[in-house]
Formats: sequence, C-alpha cells, structure tokens
Amino acid sequence: MSAPGNGTLRVLPLGGLGEIGKNMTVVEYDGSIVLVDTGLMFPTAEMLGIDLVLPDFDYLRERADDVEAIVITHGHEDHIGALPYVVRELFPDDPPPVYGAPLTAEMARSKLEEHKLDVVEVVDIETGEEFAAGPFDLELLHVSHSIPDACAVIVGTPRGRILLTGDYKFDQTPVDGTPTDTSRLAQLGQDGLLLLCGDSTNADRAGSAPSESSIGPHLKDAFERCEGRILVTSFASNIHRVQQVVDAAVATGRKVALVGRSMRRNFAIGRKLGHIYAPEGMVISPKEIDDYPDDEVTVICTGSQGEPLSALRRMAHNDHPQIQLHSGDTVMFSASPVPGNERAVNETIDRLFHIGATVITAQDAPIHASGHGYAEELKLMINLTKPRYVMPIHGDFKRLRLHAALAEAVGIDPADIFQLENGLPLDIDDRGARIGERVKSGMIFVDGLEVGDVEDVALRDRRMLSNDGVFIVVATVSEVDGTTISDPEVIFRGVPFIDEADEMIDDLRERIERTVSDQSAKNGDEGGVDESELRQKLHDDVARFVYERTKRRPMVLPVVVEV
Amino acid sequence: MSAPGNGTLRVLPLGGLGEIGKNMTVVEYDGSIVLVDTGLMFPTAEMLGIDLVLPDFDYLRERADDVEAIVITHGHEDHIGALPYVVRELFPDDPPPVYGAPLTAEMARSKLEEHKLDVVEVVDIETGEEFAAGPFDLELLHVSHSIPDACAVIVGTPRGRILLTGDYKFDQTPVDGTPTDTSRLAQLGQDGLLLLCGDSTNADRAGSAPSESSIGPHLKDAFERCEGRILVTSFASNIHRVQQVVDAAVATGRKVALVGRSMRRNFAIGRKLGHIYAPEGMVISPKEIDDYPDDEVTVICTGSQGEPLSALRRMAHNDHPQIQLHSGDTVMFSASPVPGNERAVNETIDRLFHIGATVITAQDAPIHASGHGYAEELKLMINLTKPRYVMPIHGDFKRLRLHAALAEAVGIDPADIFQLENGLPLDIDDRGARIGERVKSGMIFVDGLEVGDVEDVALRDRRMLSNDGVFIVVATVSEVDGTTISDPEVIFRGVPFIDEADEMIDDLRERIERTVSDQSAKNGDEGGVDESELRQKLHDDVARFVYERTKRRPMVLPVVVEV
Repeated sequence: MSAPGNGTLRVLPLGGLGEIGKNMTVVEYDGSIVLVDTGLMFPTAEMLGIDLVLPDFDYLRERADDVEAIVITHGHEDHIGALPYVVRELFPDDPPPVYGAPLTAEMARSKLEEHKLDVVEVVDIETGEEFAAGPFDLELLHVSHSIPDACAVIVGTPRGRILLTGDYKFDQTPVDGTPTDTSRLAQLGQDGLLLLCGDSTNADRAGSAPSESSIGPHLKDAFERCEGRILVTSFASNIHRVQQVVDAAVATGRKVALVGRSMRRNFAIGRKLGHIYAPEGMVISPKEIDDYPDDEVTVICTGSQGEPLSALRRMAHNDHPQIQLHSGDTVMFSASPVPGNERAVNETIDRLFHIGATVITAQDAPIHASGHGYAEELKLMINLTKPRYVMPIHGDFKRLRLHAALAEAVGIDPADIFQLENGLPLDIDDRGARIGERVKSGMIFVDGLEVGDVEDVALRDRRMLSNDGVFIVVATVSEVDGTTISDPEVIFRGVPFIDEADEMIDDLRERIERTVSDQSAKNGDEGGVDESELRQKLHDDVARFVYERTKRRPMVLPVVVEV
Repeated sequence: MSAPGNGTLRVLPLGGLGEIGKNMTVVEYDGSIVLVDTGLMFPTAEMLGIDLVLPDFDYLRERADDVEAIVITHGHEDHIGALPYVVRELFPDDPPPVYGAPLTAEMARSKLEEHKLDVVEVVDIETGEEFAAGPFDLELLHVSHSIPDACAVIVGTPRGRILLTGDYKFDQTPVDGTPTDTSRLAQLGQDGLLLLCGDSTNADRAGSAPSESSIGPHLKDAFERCEGRILVTSFASNIHRVQQVVDAAVATGRKVALVGRSMRRNFAIGRKLGHIYAPEGMVISPKEIDDYPDDEVTVICTGSQGEPLSALRRMAHNDHPQIQLHSGDTVMFSASPVPGNERAVNETIDRLFHIGATVITAQDAPIHASGHGYAEELKLMINLTKPRYVMPIHGDFKRLRLHAALAEAVGIDPADIFQLENGLPLDIDDRGARIGERVKSGMIFVDGLEVGDVEDVALRDRRMLSNDGVFIVVATVSEVDGTTISDPEVIFRGVPFIDEADEMIDDLRERIERTVSDQSAKNGDEGGVDESELRQKLHDDVARFVYERTKRRPMVLPVVVEV
C-alpha cells in the first residue's frame, strides 16, 4: 500500500462510505497518521455466525508506527466499537494515545478494559482545547447528537484545516443547554477551511430535525394518558432521552426501574459524569416493581431494535425473569428502527399486542427525534464553514449523492465535491485535490476470538450447511485390496423428514458398498486403494443419490478409513 | 380434532391471523366443509433453507372427504400459493373442485399443472353466479384490489350468510372501470349478514387508500421528466399497474420491454384474458433494447422487493445477461417493500445509486397505491353489510386489534367482535357465537420435495451449523481392545481462520488419540469397546478443545469405526 508523496495531504475513508456504519477515516501527511473514529457494523443475516464487522484496516498494517493518535468523535458503536480490535491487531505493543471528550473517553476505557487492553492511554479532551499529534494540531468542537459529549474534530495540517463533523445536528434547544458550537464553526469558515467531511445520514430528509427537548413534553403527555405501567424503550446511550423519561416519570408521580445491562451501565456512567439527574429514591430495582401500584411504575429498558436477547424482546415473549407484561401495560418506543431491524421490531410490537399491551411508536406520537441533522442542517454546516472542498461521509451511496447535491445547491463548485468510496483517498497537494489510487478496503469479520477476512469458502460452506444440512459417510476399506471391512456409517444433521430407521438410509448404505466394491474391482489389478479417487466417487454417488431421493443438496462429506 | 356438533356453524381460521400471509379459512356445517383460500408465506431468514411456509392443515387430514369445495378469492400467493400442496397432501385421489373468477382460475390451473396435478377440476365462476357445495350456497362478489378478478366470497349456510372479503379496497375509479360491488354489499346488509370476516391489512392507516387510477398521471409526469431509459419495477401480478406503465410509455413515445419470467407470464395471461392492452409493435424483446435510443425505451421488470434472483437485483449488481444499467437510467419503484424486505430493497436501491442511476420510489412521488383499504374503508364495509358478528382476518395481532376497534367505533357490540387466532374456531349455534375449542394450527414447511413439520431439531442443527460450522472426527479402534488402529481423521467445514496444516489440527488429533487410549485403558479389563460411551467422550473432549482454542462452538460429530 503506497503512502502519498511528501507534502501531500491524504484523507482516506476506510469505512462509512457506501454503507451505514463502521466509520473510520485516515488523515495522513508526510508519514504521520491520525485515525478519526474506529467504528463497527453489525452483521446482516447473510453473514452466518459472524459476530461483528470491522473496516478493513489493512492499509495501516505496515504503517502502524506512523499512527500518532486515534480520535473518537463520540461513544456510539459505529464510531468507537472497533477500537479494541484496531488496537489489538495494529498496536499490540506500543499503541498511540486515544483522545475523546470525557464521556467518550470513559466509554473507550471501559471497552479497552473489557478486552484487557488497559495499557492504552486514553486522554480526556475538553472542547476548544488544542492537542498535537505529529504534524497535526487537533481540536474537538462540541456538536449536539443523541449521546452527550459528541464532537466534531478539527485537524490542522500544514496544508490547511480539515473538519470531520462526526454525527451532528443543529439542535437549538438541546437538553443539556449547549447547542452545536456554531460560533467556532463560523470562525473556521472565516479563517478558511480546506476540507469538510460531513455526516450524510439524513441527507434524504427535508427540513431540520426536531429538537431533542421537543420530545419531553410529548413523553409527558403520553404518560399522563396512561393508567397502567409504562415501559419506555430507547437506546441506552441516549442519555438525554433517558433523562427526559425520568422527568416525565417525576412529573406523573412514577418510580423508574432500569432493565437491561447496557441501560443500567449507561445510566450509571451518565450519573457519574453529571449528564443525568434523578431525585433521591426515584430509581427502584426491577424486583421492587411489584411493590408499587401499576400507575406508579415506569420501566426504562433496552430492546428498541427488537434485539434477540434484549429485555423488551424477552418480555414480549413472556420470557423475562423479573417482568411479566399484561393487558393495561403501555410500551413506548422512543426510538426508530435502524434500517434492517424493521422485521425484528415489528415482531416484538406484535407480540406485545398479542399480550394485550398498548404500543406507542414514533409513528403514533412525536416521542423520538433523530440525532442526525436533516438537509437544511447539512446546508447550514457548509454555509457556516465555507470549505474549499467537500467530502460527504457516513452514508450509503444514495445519501452521499444527495449530500453532494446539497453542497452544490449552496454554491460549492461540483469539481470541488468528492463522492468517494471506502479505500479511495482524497489527495491534496500544491496543485489541488484529486482522487488518489485505490487502497485495499472492505470489511473484516470478528468470529469468536479471531479477526480477519473470513474466507469466502467458510461462509459459503456455512450457507450450504444451513440451507440443506450435511451428510457424512464413512467407508472402512482394506488397505490391501480396497474391499469393505465394516458396514458404512451414515450420519446426517439438519436434514428434515428423514430418520435413521428410514429405508432410504439402508439404500444409501448399499449404494456406498457398491461404490466401494466397484472401485476395488477397478483397482483390483494394482491392489491397494486410491483414497482420493474413492472419496471423490463416494461424494458424487452419495450426492446424486440424496438429490434424487430428496431434491435437496446437502453437503456430502465422505471419509475413507483404510485398515 | 373434534368437529363441531350438528347444527353448529364453524368458521375456523387456519392461517392469516397474527401474521401477514398464508391465508386459509375453514367454513364447516354438519360434516361439510368449504375452504376459502389456500395461501402461503415466504420464509424468514431464521427458517434456514426452508422454501415455503404453509398453514398447518392437520385439522383437515382425517376429514379430507368432508371438503366439498375450495374457493380462491384472488391470485396472490398468500391466497392461492398453497393450493398444490393442499391438494397433494389432502386429496391425492379425489380432490374437490376449485372455484375462482376467471383469472384466478387460470392461475390455479397453471400452478396445479406445474405440480402435475391437472386432474383437479378448476371451475371459472362469474361474480353474481350462485354455485352450491354440500349445504352451502356460494357466490363471488367483485372487489377492487391490486390484481384483476379479485373477489369476496359469500357463503350461504343454514345458519345465515357469511362474507369473507378477501383482499379489497373501495376504489371508486379502478383501472378496469368496475368498482367494488357496493350495491350487492348493501343488499347483504339489508337481507341480514350473520358474520363478516374482513381483511385487516391496512387497519393501521387512517383515511382511504388512493385510487389505482391516480397512479397513471404521476407515472406519466415522471416519464416526461426522464431523458434516459426508464425501468419500472412492480409486482408482476399487478396487471392494472403494468397497464398504466404501458400507457405512460405510449404517451411519451417509448417502447416497452418485459424482463423477468413472472412479468412476461403475467403479461401474457393478462393479455389473453383481456385485462391488458398494448398497441401493435409496442412490446419489444429485451434483446432489442439497444436498437432504440435511450429515450425511447421502457423496461418493466420484476425485483421490486429486492429478491435475490430477480431481474432488477441482477441489474443492480451488473449481473444481468441482457441489460447493463448506466448513469442516466431512471429506475422507478412502483411498489412498496413488504415488511421484512426493507433491507433487500434498500441494498438494491443503493447499488443503483452507485451505478449512477436515478431512483424514484413511492416516497419520492405518488407512483404506488396499496391494494388494501384503509381504516375508513374497513368502516364502510361494516356499515354497508351490517353484520351480526365481526371477525377481523388477514393481519398481525396489531392490525386485528385495530380492526376490532374500528368495528366498535361504527357501533358493533364488543361482545360480537371476535379477535381470534389461527386454530381458534368461531362456533355459531342457536345460542349465538362463541370461541370454540382450539385445534392444531401453525406452520408447516416445504423443504425440497417434502411438506411437513420440520422438526425443531433439524432447524436447530442448521442454525448451529450455520453459526459455527462443523467438526467431524473419526476414530478407528480395535474391536478387541479398543486401541487406535489408524490415525484419527479430522474434517471441518464452515470454520474460518483454520487450515488443515494448522498446529491446532495436529493437537486435536493427539487429543483424540488420548481420549481413545484413556477409554481403552478404562475398559481394558472387560475388553472390547463401549462405542456409544467412546463417542460421547470424544464429543465432549473435542468440543471442549475446540472451544478453548477458538471460543466457538461448532457442531462436533464423532464417528467410531470398529475393526
């Protein structure tokens, strides 16, 4: 992987372009590198058995020593989740420092500890504070988003300043009272910004996102209309949302119980860092719920995405150890389904209806606001910062294209707008900016303990196994003349509608013996066994036999034991 | 499965309640049965390798002789798709006649022929024409829906009339000029309707569905703004939609090519039955597309749901034999994603954006209308037919509940509204209606040639295989003293990151030999081998070994060969 020439500034997206998730951007100058975000993505249903998806950071493998710093914009998994894997794979001995605003840094520490990587230095940075890494001057800039302490990153380089926005919206009335720092953004524009790398997540939505604080009154309204228990599900990291649920509970004389591991953990971190406040005696344990009348109880729980093991999903299936739902309960989804989770969310909702609960979603009442700015906000960002070049990031190809169109609409020259892909670098030198040579990129998988390219063959095998199951046949033959020594073994798994005792299995044993004796006869003159030929023959004969009988193509694994 | 007592009318949903799909309802009186619809459902991602999902019709197995008729309301898969399986499984020798309006009957014949079941008598019925089956007087009633010849079914029984609506909307300006027969519905209400079983699909949508004919002008507008090729994707069975696309093409001077097997087949059937008209020379073959300038071409193709092998999906992946998309092409989705297909649809759209095509969906322009009536239409149906009892059908639990609330809103006594489940019959006798005893119901699977309950174990095995792959170990031991005779074999599939040559595999072989020799030493005194004990021991030792080394739990299949 060739590095850019001396004096060339490179901005290289390794993740987050042409997809939603696993955001990671390389900023590079004269052999020094800063990484902005190390995010992950959750696997799709086709990635059988894969635990997590990471950006392919092969570009950095031979250049790990050049990485001067890792900066994390905020604590969401698609920005921070790959951190332990990146550290373990690239910097087993001498990791660079990791920088983030206090909550982000706290979450980074917690993740690294979980992976026993607590040697990494994680540095709390306040917004506005400058810090250096190699030739770069760095600064975090406060933005509003659906998690506290979200930041944009200003990277000062010898060629000029770059702004990577992270995820943001221009919330004029955020719950913590501190809107996105438009003043600093305007100053960047006045001073001259070389490149804006901006979040494209909501480029397809017209207008502006509703303010987070507009949600509180609607939650309270909804609470006031409920006579039974109230369960609210939301992202555990959306601490301001959780605060607003607590406020609605206080206002309507209800206690709050936190259910779900990440909900309890984030609540504790948020309290510790002063992002969340609940009056004394307000929070009860899930075990105490039954001590209170239904109209004095609120449960805040995980499961807004219908995740299989989440608290709400288990309640919806009558499978939660502490909480049994019943008719009269109201479940509020204070979140939207992330694309791809619609089916799981709808299934959960329908189970809740079946139990007799009332369900209120963001479609029924304005009880959710996105953390990503809409089209007008993306335009405002460009108008404030007046960048020379624009590179839309964080979005599938549709959203990148729409974001580029917004940039053009506010007057950026189309030649200065770069619609890139993961692995396509933007190189900027004296002559200006242009697309550089493609580097390796894509996805790597976490599967159990291992990180790497899951070879296609392993996934193809899993797909075959999962579609049609597997037949294993064992033939034991004499190494002298290749004749059968003991009865063939037939084992199958994941193949429905047949039974050990079926005639078909007897027929299959006979078929195997015939194959063995045919092969033995054929090779009779030379004696001995051509094991690989026999295996191939067994494979083909058994596969054909099974297909004829079942019209399915399970994987066939022949084993030849020579004695 | 007990039948209802003499003189009791039973209406038993076997599918379509608490789910979207596989609609099937039993109407039964004094030992005679009429089946209304025999629909299927497509498997979800969790149903690994399953081809199709059918209603469990076990209730009918011992009573197949009692079935006097099968009536199909319309030709959509969720109403007709299970017909060949129901016929094959229940009536291998003497099937009852199948009734439907002409297009529906034609589609039934085509399906039965495909399954070599052309002995079944399929009878064309015109709306308004009465036909008898056992004690029942039957009549089809014309409704508007997203396929021509859709009908509701009136079942006259000794206890009174039942109306099963099938899928319907009150389209006042349908493309074929014949709205839902409100006059006949009103007459049913005047004469006295015992029970209304009504479609609940859009019970959650306020107001009324837009008319199908409102789509045409919007399609034409969109066509007029396009300078390159236009591709329109829609459901192949939505013949009136296809007609409107043809009309827009005619109006803008474009030819039409049909791409995708079901699109071509449905177009041909629609033409034959007079539901579709295209001027002479209008339809060109896909191979001729390149003979025309881009602005004279329209392609109508399958793939509106992002189906893996569909024409559009293949084009989006640059993998279609005839059509290569390029920048300047416009793809119009004249359909909405069916719940669960969102991810596949979004992926397809994003591939199209990546190619540089413009994509217009129903969210961007009103180029799709649902075939199912919204809340106001469901209320109109109840007000017109004035039923004594109401049973919402065709919907998940949420929609059934909302439909029940609509019935209550127009004045039906809540005690006369029955929110049932698959397998829960409504029994009506002299004393009125009540919920009867639950019968077996649920889903059965089509897997290859077979139809049946895929045992949980087969699906559980497939899940395990697909998550973590499989290890097969073969130990060959002496039947005399249980000692190892030849080297253990180790085979694995679907396990990434390991290689035949890995040290781990050598270590595993050693581990197996140790297990064998431990067992042989233990049983040494008695001599021989306890094969099942050795197998169990091998399983446990190998599973533990693999988990320690990989933190994964592949399926472990030990084979012991005694020689």
